[in-house]
Amino acid sequence: MNNEFTITPWEVTGEIDYDLLVERFGTRKIDDALLDRISKYGELHPLLRRGVFYSHRDFDWILDMYDKGQPFVLYTGRGPSGHTHIGHLITWIFTKYLQDVFGAKLYFQMTDDEKFLFNENLTLEDTLKGAYENALDVIALGFDLKKTKIVVDTECIHTLYPIALKVAKRVTFSTTRAVFGFDNSTNIGSIFYTSIQAAPAFLESEMEKHNVPCLIPCGIDQDAHFRVARDVAPLLGYYKPALIHNKMFPSLMGSDKMSSSQPGATIFTTDPPKVVRKKIMNAFTGGAVSVEEQKKSGGKPEVCSVFKYQYYLFEPDDAAVNDLQERCRRGQIMCGECKKLLADRVVTFLEEHQRKREEARIHLEEFLMRDP
Amino acid sequence: MNNEFTITPWEVTGEIDYDLLVERFGTRKIDDALLDRISKYGELHPLLRRGVFYSHRDFDWILDMYDKGQPFVLYTGRGPSGHTHIGHLITWIFTKYLQDVFGAKLYFQMTDDEKFLFNENLTLEDTLKGAYENALDVIALGFDLKKTKIVVDTECIHTLYPIALKVAKRVTFSTTRAVFGFDNSTNIGSIFYTSIQAAPAFLESEMEKHNVPCLIPCGIDQDAHFRVARDVAPLLGYYKPALIHNKMFPSLMGSDKMSSSQPGATIFTTDPPKVVRKKIMNAFTGGAVSVEEQKKSGGKPEVCSVFKYQYYLFEPDDAAVNDLQERCRRGQIMCGECKKLLADRVVTFLEEHQRKREEARIHLEEFLMRDP
Repeated sequence: MNNEFTITPWEVTGEIDYDLLVERFGTRKIDDALLDRISKYGELHPLLRRGVFYSHRDFDWILDMYDKGQPFVLYTGRGPSGHTHIGHLITWIFTKYLQDVFGAKLYFQMTDDEKFLFNENLTLEDTLKGAYENALDVIALGFDLKKTKIVVDTECIHTLYPIALKVAKRVTFSTTRAVFGFDNSTNIGSIFYTSIQAAPAFLESEMEKHNVPCLIPCGIDQDAHFRVARDVAPLLGYYKPALIHNKMFPSLMGSDKMSSSQPGATIFTTDPPKVVRKKIMNAFTGGAVSVEEQKKSGGKPEVCSVFKYQYYLFEPDDAAVNDLQERCRRGQIMCGECKKLLADRVVTFLEEHQRKREEARIHLEEFLMRDP
Repeated sequence: MNNEFTITPWEVTGEIDYDLLVERFGTRKIDDALLDRISKYGELHPLLRRGVFYSHRDFDWILDMYDKGQPFVLYTGRGPSGHTHIGHLITWIFTKYLQDVFGAKLYFQMTDDEKFLFNENLTLEDTLKGAYENALDVIALGFDLKKTKIVVDTECIHTLYPIALKVAKRVTFSTTRAVFGFDNSTNIGSIFYTSIQAAPAFLESEMEKHNVPCLIPCGIDQDAHFRVARDVAPLLGYYKPALIHNKMFPSLMGSDKMSSSQPGATIFTTDPPKVVRKKIMNAFTGGAVSVEEQKKSGGKPEVCSVFKYQYYLFEPDDAAVNDLQERCRRGQIMCGECKKLLADRVVTFLEEHQRKREEARIHLEEFLMRDP
């Protein structure tokens, strides 16, 4: 087992042992029986089939309630510290799949307050602007306008604050120290913040004045916030929010999480084709030291960021992705060709996304939740 | 010197040594020179003449700025944990005096969030209801509608939150531990809360988009919050808020602070005449063990809660209050008569106040600040 990694809502470093996380956090793996059950509601999403969404808390309970006629709401979000990158889209694309399959309402939280509090160099103006820019990426993915509300924290704080206060009253500094690693030098906004991230999980229950189950698709790195929210929920008379977790989207440099702080290893949704191609051509692969060697002993798709991109997102066809993997292992495809294949896919995807992203501007206001 | 007392925003116990507090908190006493200066703007208020308002931070700077043509805003507030009592009125009456003399705008904060976070038994519904009830007492005192805004925290959080976030980012848990005595078991809402109490001090500067000096009349027990706010202000580009502090209004049982948790020793603004008379007739006095003894050796007005009431609030005439003191010392007035004198004054005051308090209901909405 590999213990040499860190994963918190604010830091992901090292090579992540995802099985160990399930054990460490006390979540449950999505097993074949659960996959089989999900497939009865609609075709399994590739992100499920391929184990990118791989862990959960009470997702089976969400389905039990749904079967009894009790619909659930979805809640996911984004910390608007800068441009959206491809890694962020994983969770959102899967959330849209859940909205489509289950007809679920979605609260999408933009945590402009969080990014301000946790980043010395960001102003509130920066993070609010980031929230609106990132919202365009959310809308571009095709969420149902009638069932989706984008909740920008500072713009919806009138609605969120009373719920956050109820949460905060039940969470001690000790808890946040243990869960988030805070210490005496942590600022008091950061300490309070988890209450704000908990609030949307209970928003529908507050609005509807009766309990509504909530399912949160999120990166496994966000689990800490919702462990706190789940512990507090019964004390406040709410259902515990359920979770479904994805693995981190890999960096083009080979590490386990794509990050905006490494712009060269990160494809942003606003990158022009030339930039995308350049980044992918410079990506870390599983290729051998020379073309001759690679033709002889093959490549290593399991460590290759280019292959991971296809696997995670850009090649939804299982047969095609397996074929690509095999050809790589057998030395039948070289890295240059493989990179070009991916770059074409990403550029095509982003051209379409960027078009929809511009169209989204006219719908932005309708998607935003506003304080009364 | 007496060190056996505690004074924080949430606890006042023991016999308070007010001079020691000035030293301990690092404030300045209001001296004769400052009183002399204040008297040039308008007649000195009895609460100043009698040293009930006795300490300050930068009040002289506020006057300097005022003299240069830079007006200041006033900010005071109330934690709406229950009914308003006479003790609360001291600060508000003095604030109205400052509004009248200096033509100053006032933000009056109702900290419904604070009282919810710090009191296990209060709900947000309780404290919000308390805020509106307490607001009637504020309005009844005659504040200028055109220059006064009552800021209920949960109702104005959209406006306050961005300012509070800026403050919170600059305050560590260490600081709140040192200033407020928080520990690991403190809830994270309480830890964050001081940022919300700081926010109105900077509200006018934010609204006007240029720095406006702010003067905060408050009980000396609230100084801790504003020490934090003052430390942070320059880091955010604001002026440090100035303060003017009053001593605690005494309890009818003789201790140093009237408190809602001792309803028998506390006169609420909504008490009917009979209740007021009963409470005052049961008050702790400086009387001797028997009428004979008192006629012989006199009473002790310096420890008498009934005398303190006259001195603090109900006998504005200096000659009359001195006369009362002398007659007590000489055994020329007995406690029964003295209590009746006070009870008549308080009942007359409250009958008028209660009438204005009912009239205030129609103006409540106009006095309230609302989130945009």
